[in-house]
Amino acid sequence: MPTFDAPTHGFPNSEFEGRVVRAQEIMRRYEFDALLLTTSHNIRYFTGFDSQFWESPTRPWFVVVPAEGKPMAVIPEIGAPEMERTWIDDVRSWPAPQPADDGTSLLTAALAQLPRKFGRVGAELGREMSLRMPVMQFLELRDSLPGLELDNGSPCIWEIRRVKTPGEIARIRFICGITSQAYENLPNTVSKGDSVRDTCRRLTIDILNRGADAVPFLPGIAGHNGPNQIVCGPQDKDLEDGDILFIDTGATYDGYFCDFDRNYAVGKVSDEARRANAAVWDATEAGLAAARPGATVEDVWRAQSEVIEAAGSLGNNVGRMGHGLGLQLTEPPSNMPGDITMLEPGVILTIEPGMEFAPGHMIVHEENVLITDDGCELLTLRAPRDFWTIN
Amino acid sequence: MPTFDAPTHGFPNSEFEGRVVRAQEIMRRYEFDALLLTTSHNIRYFTGFDSQFWESPTRPWFVVVPAEGKPMAVIPEIGAPEMERTWIDDVRSWPAPQPADDGTSLLTAALAQLPRKFGRVGAELGREMSLRMPVMQFLELRDSLPGLELDNGSPCIWEIRRVKTPGEIARIRFICGITSQAYENLPNTVSKGDSVRDTCRRLTIDILNRGADAVPFLPGIAGHNGPNQIVCGPQDKDLEDGDILFIDTGATYDGYFCDFDRNYAVGKVSDEARRANAAVWDATEAGLAAARPGATVEDVWRAQSEVIEAAGSLGNNVGRMGHGLGLQLTEPPSNMPGDITMLEPGVILTIEPGMEFAPGHMIVHEENVLITDDGCELLTLRAPRDFWTIN
Repeated sequence: MPTFDAPTHGFPNSEFEGRVVRAQEIMRRYEFDALLLTTSHNIRYFTGFDSQFWESPTRPWFVVVPAEGKPMAVIPEIGAPEMERTWIDDVRSWPAPQPADDGTSLLTAALAQLPRKFGRVGAELGREMSLRMPVMQFLELRDSLPGLELDNGSPCIWEIRRVKTPGEIARIRFICGITSQAYENLPNTVSKGDSVRDTCRRLTIDILNRGADAVPFLPGIAGHNGPNQIVCGPQDKDLEDGDILFIDTGATYDGYFCDFDRNYAVGKVSDEARRANAAVWDATEAGLAAARPGATVEDVWRAQSEVIEAAGSLGNNVGRMGHGLGLQLTEPPSNMPGDITMLEPGVILTIEPGMEFAPGHMIVHEENVLITDDGCELLTLRAPRDFWTIN
Repeated sequence: MPTFDAPTHGFPNSEFEGRVVRAQEIMRRYEFDALLLTTSHNIRYFTGFDSQFWESPTRPWFVVVPAEGKPMAVIPEIGAPEMERTWIDDVRSWPAPQPADDGTSLLTAALAQLPRKFGRVGAELGREMSLRMPVMQFLELRDSLPGLELDNGSPCIWEIRRVKTPGEIARIRFICGITSQAYENLPNTVSKGDSVRDTCRRLTIDILNRGADAVPFLPGIAGHNGPNQIVCGPQDKDLEDGDILFIDTGATYDGYFCDFDRNYAVGKVSDEARRANAAVWDATEAGLAAARPGATVEDVWRAQSEVIEAAGSLGNNVGRMGHGLGLQLTEPPSNMPGDITMLEPGVILTIEPGMEFAPGHMIVHEENVLITDDGCELLTLRAPRDFWTIN
């Protein structure tokens, strides 16, 4: 069995310097004088700031990435001591919460100081992003910046984050590896009659003990002949003979996610489910073969879809067959019709075929891959073609 | 030692019926024809929909709470099977992701059907809330609703959620209880020389094993003579003689949070730190005595602040001394100057005094209380006045 060595937590300053240089090239193409960031993932990407305090919705946080030079932070005082330990030099803070002015005037002043070439700042306004500040405050900010337009920076930001650095890849490889081994170990720790909730708790603890920092996403769903959905669970149902147990996992290491699932037969399951499971496994193989530089993610979707359709799929409420992965559980692009994002080395993708094989019964598989110079490298330990069994 | 029995997961339909009736009374006062909800906590509050899939930022979700009748859901197909199992009857879905129209036209149609009295819909636009949909999509939606204004619904929504039901209180009491016991057990599981990261991992696992569903927030910070901040951690530092280890925890049960901290002396710590710790403990006592119906949260702040000031506080970068608690780690109100929210039975509050007792060294305590008819009930097992010790 392979062993996985944990990378050291945290990146050297050179990592962030490199990210900013690359980001600034992309920003110029999008004609932005700066990016305005409010969300945990985007702020962490540029500063290295690592906190679980995002769980509290009370205080807004801001980081500005200018077209030249280093990012600056405009943040609540509670975060200043730790932000000052990052590579960021310019940290401005206010005593938050301060309902009448929670950073707006400080941020307005910071943005007003920016050298202007295009008169446009990219903010997190577009698809697959939510701005982490009150909309009322955003509209007030927007109106307080004469001559400076706050525009949709999401496509630019997603492009910046799309190709992963070697340091990012090492972290995702590690979390994929240890989570793969925890999945494989699960049948040794649970039995028929255990609840799905306890099963998921045991898997979570095993993943933590193997070195994950957190397990923010671990829905487990069991249903006779397969579950009817894959995003809500675990619940108080016991594992029964004939169930298929589906578990998806987004565990993190140093901020980076894995996102892949596994399916377990509880005792004896139907031949129909076994055939469907094998077909979805074959669809994954087709996706793995299609995932290479120069292909589009639509190509990766099509390769999987053809196998699924040939196997008699009744549909798939997931809406796509895989997506990007990194600091977030799901990132663009989407493996689906109409997404013609071209793959290039350094992109990390999930390959996620699924189908409803009988009314109300789904099989969904998922693996994580790194696009390489000539194809892709599997970061997860490939699932077997037949179910693992829980007895 | 007390034992805590876990409430059954999930609420009966009558819980949601009661919440909606009460919400509609409050909505009328705010003159809203409906509330438009996009975030996990607000949607769960009204529907019971429980999912970890919010971790994926790809698809927006919407729930509309009208001024009369039951809420309706407008959500991605991937979530429809489980939403249909809640008490909600009207579930409309679309095959998401669908970049050209991710629910906008379905939602526009749903809002256009609403009976209008005030011509106003309350959305999550104000303080301590972030809208969970792209701002570009929100602006498009806003412009597609002639005669219907999307206005700031946050104060109304926070008022609705402020007083907890018996079912909500039972869940918070349980998670506070088991987390208290895990904190007390920690010195039995760790020693000098262990890393803060491993210490936090062991505590997380202990809390899970005692019955928590998740531990989304568990920053641990150790520093000689006390940490200089309380929101970023754990990191790769080993516990050393003279350190004070601060750990804060937001664990959840059935969606409901606890939020309280504990402080541990590693070996022998300074007398100065012990005196500060005792003063902050005394400030908590003052806060507990002040937390009663008819008092404002400013009163609760003042009671704590007077003790802290008398003990020679150099300041406090937290910005307040406690806050509301419930489906989120922090909720309004804030125990701070200027917040004159009046306490009433059913409100759950953290009492959280803190001070910098020497430059760069903080002590912060926290307990969770339920406001009762004649005072408050401690939901956490009260911390001792002196540090627990890790040897």
